[in-house]
Amino acid sequence: MTRITIAKGDGIGPEIMDATLAVLKAAGAALEYDEIEVGEKVYLSGNTSGIAASSWDIIRRNKVFLKAPITTPQGGGYKSLNVTTRKFLGLYSNVRPCLSLSPYVATKHPQMDVVIIRENEEDLYAGIEHQQTDEVIQCLKLISRPGCEKIVRYAFEYARAFGRKKVTCFTKDNIMKQTDGLFHKVFDEIAVEYPEIENEHWIIDIGAAKLADTPEAFDVIVTLNLYGDVLSDVAAQIAGSVGMAGSANIGESCAMFEAIHGSAPRRAGQDVANPSGLLQGAIMMLQHLGQNAIAEKIQNAWLKTIEDGIHTYDIFKEGVSAQKVGTQAFAEA
Amino acid sequence: MTRITIAKGDGIGPEIMDATLAVLKAAGAALEYDEIEVGEKVYLSGNTSGIAASSWDIIRRNKVFLKAPITTPQGGGYKSLNVTTRKFLGLYSNVRPCLSLSPYVATKHPQMDVVIIRENEEDLYAGIEHQQTDEVIQCLKLISRPGCEKIVRYAFEYARAFGRKKVTCFTKDNIMKQTDGLFHKVFDEIAVEYPEIENEHWIIDIGAAKLADTPEAFDVIVTLNLYGDVLSDVAAQIAGSVGMAGSANIGESCAMFEAIHGSAPRRAGQDVANPSGLLQGAIMMLQHLGQNAIAEKIQNAWLKTIEDGIHTYDIFKEGVSAQKVGTQAFAEA
Ligand SMILES: CC(C)[C@H](C(=O)O)[C@@H](O)C(=O)O
Ligand SMILES: CC(C)[C@H](C(=O)O)[C@@H](O)C(=O)O
Repeated sequence: MTRITIAKGDGIGPEIMDATLAVLKAAGAALEYDEIEVGEKVYLSGNTSGIAASSWDIIRRNKVFLKAPITTPQGGGYKSLNVTTRKFLGLYSNVRPCLSLSPYVATKHPQMDVVIIRENEEDLYAGIEHQQTDEVIQCLKLISRPGCEKIVRYAFEYARAFGRKKVTCFTKDNIMKQTDGLFHKVFDEIAVEYPEIENEHWIIDIGAAKLADTPEAFDVIVTLNLYGDVLSDVAAQIAGSVGMAGSANIGESCAMFEAIHGSAPRRAGQDVANPSGLLQGAIMMLQHLGQNAIAEKIQNAWLKTIEDGIHTYDIFKEGVSAQKVGTQAFAEA
Repeated sequence: MTRITIAKGDGIGPEIMDATLAVLKAAGAALEYDEIEVGEKVYLSGNTSGIAASSWDIIRRNKVFLKAPITTPQGGGYKSLNVTTRKFLGLYSNVRPCLSLSPYVATKHPQMDVVIIRENEEDLYAGIEHQQTDEVIQCLKLISRPGCEKIVRYAFEYARAFGRKKVTCFTKDNIMKQTDGLFHKVFDEIAVEYPEIENEHWIIDIGAAKLADTPEAFDVIVTLNLYGDVLSDVAAQIAGSVGMAGSANIGESCAMFEAIHGSAPRRAGQDVANPSGLLQGAIMMLQHLGQNAIAEKIQNAWLKTIEDGIHTYDIFKEGVSAQKVGTQAFAEA
């Protein structure tokens, strides 16, 4: 039994977490849970971080954290808990597989199978902003050599471990010659250590255009934090739906797993949300914990359900899907 | 007769400029030209700005500048002439129409008709980078209230002038609450002055995903410099090809018109390049100069050529196109 931390979050969070836990249980995952409270309730209780200080101890002790989406209230100096968690736990790598399930899920890009590996601690996400005059505001983009090295090496190790053929680097180093330039330079340095893996670099503008148009041209993509944020939503969406994609946030000692989508408050409590994103996060978590057989079992059951056309509203399409189901019914299937 | 400045640039630049000038002449545009030298030759002569100081006088005097793509040499502290020109001439607004020409040009998004209006002077493009320690580099993102006001107002005025129904703002203000937050706030302030035009805001990640997946949901988009750079390449590409899109860079007193694509050195001198991007820039230039009848004549002739299936290699598709032609033949058609 491995004890992990879970948080049910806000909006559709509790429903998709319950659905995910039900699947984990049915598949016989060897897991025990410590549940913590994060998100809106904590924010509104006056704690602008969205998490109680004591919860960090639990997360650190268990090392593995499965987190449902949360809602950050508007204004008022609230901090993004996602970003805080990544920084506090040193989760430097954000892994986001974007795979087409054509013909079972409608997509214009049936051949795509892209994994986006996003730097997760630096860049404009450092959150250093500063009003210089009444009229001028600055935000600092921070890039460090160790930060670049860690994520680029992670991407090549990932490619090697999963038998992937190519790693593509995206930067805007024709403009940001020092910051993005450093990322690109480190990429070139590390790429030579992996001669069996093809490597290439694209400027982010035309590279993003290529990704949106011809995603099957890419395999593993490694990029800076903000570009990775945008590209992973684009890739997940054109593969089928952002509602289908999970994400692993990996650090030296801790790891957090989640869906890439948000808490969708308008869909909450209606038993309509698609639990697939969080379930994909949970599958990556099981792989991380070495429970590979269970991970595979769940992945296959999930694929079978999708292939049988048992679809939640977000991916339901007349002529492609067979049956429109709710969150619970999907999990049971 | 209006005297304008032109620059033939590098790579495929001279060919597509000659093709464009031939079309302008055939259509009877009331234009005279001062030609200046920019780009690679100037860079390699030791001038890292890519343009002779005296050329600025010519550009400023004529006020309107039609520029072919250039090549910036790698490394060695060369500055991007595109960015310098935008800043020197105060070209704060970059307008990029991305229109599907389905069924004449292959696209997965036949309904799309999006105009991206990109802030063109601020953001990370200020080019302020700085190595703080051996291992840490910073880049400054600069946002000013006047900068936001100018571009947002431009977008709403554009929508009004061209009878567009909606303006959408893209930012990442859930993370960059001050910089992107200011842009969003100014957007909300100015939007109320245009009650006949719908307005909305999307977070850039999920907004970009929506744009890549369902571009027909958008009309006019206004956004910060770097986001606009990426989104406009994405939108142009999924509409058909980045090779088809032109761009207007508008300032208080001067304006520059260009293709959005680069100089494609590998295609140079082969008479294969598609001159459509620069031609679209030239059409926007004629509109800017009030030569609307000529602009319309060229636009119609261009549309007719595309509709007749007379296509350059980049948009040629078996079953859609009728005839594969070179740069010159396309211009003649
Ligand atoms: C919620 C937000 C802070 C977060 C991010 O920008 O990283 C989200 O978009 C994501 O991609 O995980
Ligand atoms: C060439 C480059 C500096 C430029 C930019 O980043 O703005 C180009 O990509 C563009 O979109 O005009």
